Amino acid sequence: MSVESAAPSRSNPRRAPAKPGSQSALRQSNEQRIVQALATGGPQTQAELARQTGLSTATVSNIVRGMSRSGTVTTSPTTSSGRRALSVALNDDGSVAVGIDIGRRHLRVVLAGPDYRVLGEEAIALKAGHTAAEGLDAAAELLDRLLAEQGIPRSSVLGAGIGIPGPIDRRSGTVVQGAILPEWVGINILETFGKRLGIPVFIDNDANLGALAQVTWGPHSSVENLIFVKVGSGIGAGLILNGSLYYGNVGITGELGHMTINEHGLICRCGNRGCLETVASTSTMISLLQRTTDRPLMAPDIVRLALRGDTATLRVIDDAGLAIGRAVAHVANLINPELIVLGGSLTDLGDILLDPVRRGLLRHAVPVVGESTTVCMGSLGERAEALGGAAVVLSQPSSILG
Amino acid sequence: MSVESAAPSRSNPRRAPAKPGSQSALRQSNEQRIVQALATGGPQTQAELARQTGLSTATVSNIVRGMSRSGTVTTSPTTSSGRRALSVALNDDGSVAVGIDIGRRHLRVVLAGPDYRVLGEEAIALKAGHTAAEGLDAAAELLDRLLAEQGIPRSSVLGAGIGIPGPIDRRSGTVVQGAILPEWVGINILETFGKRLGIPVFIDNDANLGALAQVTWGPHSSVENLIFVKVGSGIGAGLILNGSLYYGNVGITGELGHMTINEHGLICRCGNRGCLETVASTSTMISLLQRTTDRPLMAPDIVRLALRGDTATLRVIDDAGLAIGRAVAHVANLINPELIVLGGSLTDLGDILLDPVRRGLLRHAVPVVGESTTVCMGSLGERAEALGGAAVVLSQPSSILG
Repeated sequence: MSVESAAPSRSNPRRAPAKPGSQSALRQSNEQRIVQALATGGPQTQAELARQTGLSTATVSNIVRGMSRSGTVTTSPTTSSGRRALSVALNDDGSVAVGIDIGRRHLRVVLAGPDYRVLGEEAIALKAGHTAAEGLDAAAELLDRLLAEQGIPRSSVLGAGIGIPGPIDRRSGTVVQGAILPEWVGINILETFGKRLGIPVFIDNDANLGALAQVTWGPHSSVENLIFVKVGSGIGAGLILNGSLYYGNVGITGELGHMTINEHGLICRCGNRGCLETVASTSTMISLLQRTTDRPLMAPDIVRLALRGDTATLRVIDDAGLAIGRAVAHVANLINPELIVLGGSLTDLGDILLDPVRRGLLRHAVPVVGESTTVCMGSLGERAEALGGAAVVLSQPSSILG
Repeated sequence: MSVESAAPSRSNPRRAPAKPGSQSALRQSNEQRIVQALATGGPQTQAELARQTGLSTATVSNIVRGMSRSGTVTTSPTTSSGRRALSVALNDDGSVAVGIDIGRRHLRVVLAGPDYRVLGEEAIALKAGHTAAEGLDAAAELLDRLLAEQGIPRSSVLGAGIGIPGPIDRRSGTVVQGAILPEWVGINILETFGKRLGIPVFIDNDANLGALAQVTWGPHSSVENLIFVKVGSGIGAGLILNGSLYYGNVGITGELGHMTINEHGLICRCGNRGCLETVASTSTMISLLQRTTDRPLMAPDIVRLALRGDTATLRVIDDAGLAIGRAVAHVANLINPELIVLGGSLTDLGDILLDPVRRGLLRHAVPVVGESTTVCMGSLGERAEALGGAAVVLSQPSSILG
């Protein structure tokens, strides 16, 4: 795999889109029309596809031929109005998409069918500070085990969408400074993973995959402009704009964790001062609370203590929530999303975290924007990123996976 | 005109786009393909258009018939390979697009042909605090005069794109609180202007039109992700994302002027505290400098004094520039644009303003983002917004203007 093969739209993440108006862009968009027509309308003849898409029968037959070669569709002879015709159907040939989420301390792998049914899923712990090679080995092993358990041959795997907790420079395919996994910085992750797993690989930032999961697997499929904010050891956002994942110029978007909240605050791992992460990440919350106990605290303890009504924990969450609210107010002022979804390891806090976030939003946003922006918790919990990874694979045009 | 008729894409601003995948969306995109083919390839037969676009000849002929009825194209009989055919050409029938920019103290009207040639242009002063009716009267008069001077009949006017210095709620078509023209708040501007001018009217925020001008008339037509920041009595941004103007959920985007810079700073007209506008707008600069002189200062004085080397003015600009840089750093961290263009009344300052903005950007952005984001002055000066207005009209599908 090269960086080239991995796209900036919901349908083709981490791959430079074909130049608008070019022949290949036209072909890509025509192919998408046909896939959509088949997904909504079921099997149909080439003539029906032409009618439904407005494409010429020559164009349809040309594209169907390519999709048939790559296994995306199956064609079979039929008759239509007494004439011989070719019926086209999307394949459900037992193929499987893989989603992999690699965090600082965890690994999750999901298997999903073309109908978006989850066929297998497992999460395991990883030791903090693991190297890219160790994370990759663990992912490969877990994938093999899940496939074996489900009796799915490796040849049925379409590809894997992999979420990484760090910014990825699309120009070089490498994780750049600022990643939660500093051991991974500088590694050409697309190449490394592609070689090791031996299947088509798509790499993306974990918050991007979380955002994609909200509009694919989550209850928000009709939302055109959605911001997914992942609050964990780091804070990052994935942006769904006009219905598609947004990648910007070099692929580093949604770096919400590095918005300056306190100009003279703590030094951040990004090299700046007083970034949102230094005020509101789970690491910051833990280091604030650690002074109150001898037992080493972890992120789940924040949730446990808060639900138990521990006042120090509630105060730390309130302060963090207000800061997150201020940051998302600036996002809302700029991007005017319909919905902001919070994800990460604190989703079980519910209103305990949502309330201060909403207060911060209303306090810092332009009134109309504050009032028209909904903030809620993600319903997919810690599964979001891995599910988003599988969604990336399932949304690829057949020419990429073929 | 209703709000309905005024779209969120470069080709159809301030109008809700047809639902993706719907029949009308399909027709809209097919029509755009044909217009593009004619604009790049010149007059051609329907068969050639079908070949170039991949559309069926039936679809092409159907769409061409509609475009011919609305006057977008002219068809004429011809022969191709010895057979009778229909040649299709984009019309240049002397039609004219109008761009109108209404500011707190100025009004500018431009006339442009379908080939984007400026046919007439004039700017006049308006008194501060003018009402919507007064601004509108002045615009109507100036438009009539320019048309008369150029000998252009009113019937040749395709429509007017009008820039307003305030956020516009697309749900109601009204200017909302936070506008630089408080006298305009609550007015259904689309309806009012449409009735008074008697031509199709498209209303947009001035910074949005400034952004559109950069990628249409300016030197940045190839830039896919561009932020245009207008620095004047207010500060607002227009966002070109993935090649199109971005409108978000209710149309209120780019409210950069209301990013919190100093949490305990001055009260802003939006009701918050310490917003960027309270630190870096020309009004703020003027009120800071006014203490040094008895003569009333205006925005052009800032430029004049700075170019003359006045140290107080240079300091005020440096502080404002750093704050603007901090705000655009947060935009860049989030949206990762290729280019940030500064516009408004201070563009003649050049590096005097650009330098602190760049310093603020590098100081507050994630390193890779800061280093890969270019900041420059807009080359269209105070003409940008009106030119953007004309661009809005010229980019409408014929069905809207017809």
